[in-house]
Amino acid sequence: MEPERTLEAALLAVDWGSTNRRVFVLAANGTVLETAQDSQGILAMDGRGFAAEAATMRARWGDLPMLCAGMVGSNRGWADAGYVAAPASLAAIAAAIHWVEPGRTAIIPGVSRDSDGRADIMRGEEVQLLGAAAAGLVSADAWLCQPGTHAKWARIQDGNLTDFTTAMTGEIFAQLGRGGLLADGLDGEVRDSAAFRQGVQAARGGDLLAGLFGARAAMVLGKRSRADQASYVSGLLIGSDCDARLEGDFAPARADRVNVLASPALGGLYLAALDELGCNARLVDSHKAFLAGITRIWSLLQ
Amino acid sequence: MEPERTLEAALLAVDWGSTNRRVFVLAANGTVLETAQDSQGILAMDGRGFAAEAATMRARWGDLPMLCAGMVGSNRGWADAGYVAAPASLAAIAAAIHWVEPGRTAIIPGVSRDSDGRADIMRGEEVQLLGAAAAGLVSADAWLCQPGTHAKWARIQDGNLTDFTTAMTGEIFAQLGRGGLLADGLDGEVRDSAAFRQGVQAARGGDLLAGLFGARAAMVLGKRSRADQASYVSGLLIGSDCDARLEGDFAPARADRVNVLASPALGGLYLAALDELGCNARLVDSHKAFLAGITRIWSLLQ
Repeated sequence: MEPERTLEAALLAVDWGSTNRRVFVLAANGTVLETAQDSQGILAMDGRGFAAEAATMRARWGDLPMLCAGMVGSNRGWADAGYVAAPASLAAIAAAIHWVEPGRTAIIPGVSRDSDGRADIMRGEEVQLLGAAAAGLVSADAWLCQPGTHAKWARIQDGNLTDFTTAMTGEIFAQLGRGGLLADGLDGEVRDSAAFRQGVQAARGGDLLAGLFGARAAMVLGKRSRADQASYVSGLLIGSDCDARLEGDFAPARADRVNVLASPALGGLYLAALDELGCNARLVDSHKAFLAGITRIWSLLQ
Repeated sequence: MEPERTLEAALLAVDWGSTNRRVFVLAANGTVLETAQDSQGILAMDGRGFAAEAATMRARWGDLPMLCAGMVGSNRGWADAGYVAAPASLAAIAAAIHWVEPGRTAIIPGVSRDSDGRADIMRGEEVQLLGAAAAGLVSADAWLCQPGTHAKWARIQDGNLTDFTTAMTGEIFAQLGRGGLLADGLDGEVRDSAAFRQGVQAARGGDLLAGLFGARAAMVLGKRSRADQASYVSGLLIGSDCDARLEGDFAPARADRVNVLASPALGGLYLAALDELGCNARLVDSHKAFLAGITRIWSLLQ
């Protein structure tokens, strides 16, 4: 029997996206020893070499093996780590790992789907999705949603990622806030309110382009206050996203449950929208899911 | 009997929008004696007084009565000309005219609708819509569409504008081209092509948020060329707009016909999308419609 000892750092797990980067210093058993988040996403590299950046990270967090997930594996990142075709398992992803520094630094490939005339891709989210199932945070047969700039909706079956759909929900909301007809009012607070839920209900039926103009018209005609506008438009967009899923491939999730991997703030809005549309949903800890996924991929590489 | 004589200028009709302005010098019988278009929309006034601008226009085109339509009648224009509630006739609009220089310069009010929980507004389009019916360019009972930044879909019954819906179609396309995930490829030419029609078909069912991301995924996976991307995304947006109308209030138009008031270029895309969705449509001269509407409103003011 091994004597008890202080846990030693064994791995740097890096969730390296376009705008943000999160580093986890992990023990061999997956325990988080240290974590840090900064805005050194791949778009902030600005010509600095990724290998040099990795050396800087090791100087700070320890000279350890490094496993990276996210947009760092895109053609604008360190190296294009490609895609594994769905249905995808953790084993298939581990088998397709892209070593940038052999035995020492690896990038996790994304997942693609292309059938029924519909193409889709993800890069980074697969770690959370499969990790949630592997860690038992969701059942081995589950419906999952990851809200965000590009919201992902995924089906897990027998622990494998069998299909998914991405919606531009968060990006469209951000673009509408930056300028154009609807920008006036979108700087307000978004919260689960009567206005938010009215937006969700107005989204039913899939006429988003008219719904968005109607949001402006209602404000101009004094039917909705400026303070409620951001919540209403957010409800319209999140509602459009949720309604399209529940009227489409996610229809069986109504009888089951949707697992929302997100922070309580954004996740709460999706829970509210799904509730408004008659669907049972729960929040799942997305950091736990990411850590479970990346440590399992790492163990498959040993 | 009056002797024949050269037509004299009788009215300056001004289609004064946010970014563009079009001036028509008209004879009393509606004949166009001169026309000019510039980029002196209301957003270009930059603090210059509208009264002073009107004086400049009269110095150039003649010291005539002036009748203005469009965003010049908004709270960011010369004066807020308000809205006439639909159903609206040319007579109701003339009765609600807003005189900024009594007997000499007037602004046409917009039209609003607010029932069944749906608010909508227009300002300027009502002149074309009602003018098209008044001039017999469309029948007194017709379905009309005005493509653009904010596409209008309208129902004319007994020559009155009874209902309408606005969709943010053109604005969303413009915003997607200015930045974000889809901007790469949207600088290409948009034309009625196989890619455009694939976009229209993909729009069926009303899942625009996922369709937009799928457009990017297809390009990344090499399923669509960069050269086809703008046409596909335009097809997706115009298709979403048309499909929502034909699945909603415009459903009876399938058995009738949609009258598209637009330039041949943009109008042609809407004709193609409507055709792809099984709806008969035709192009109507939007300038003729505008002139017919504004001269009739002027005659009602005499």
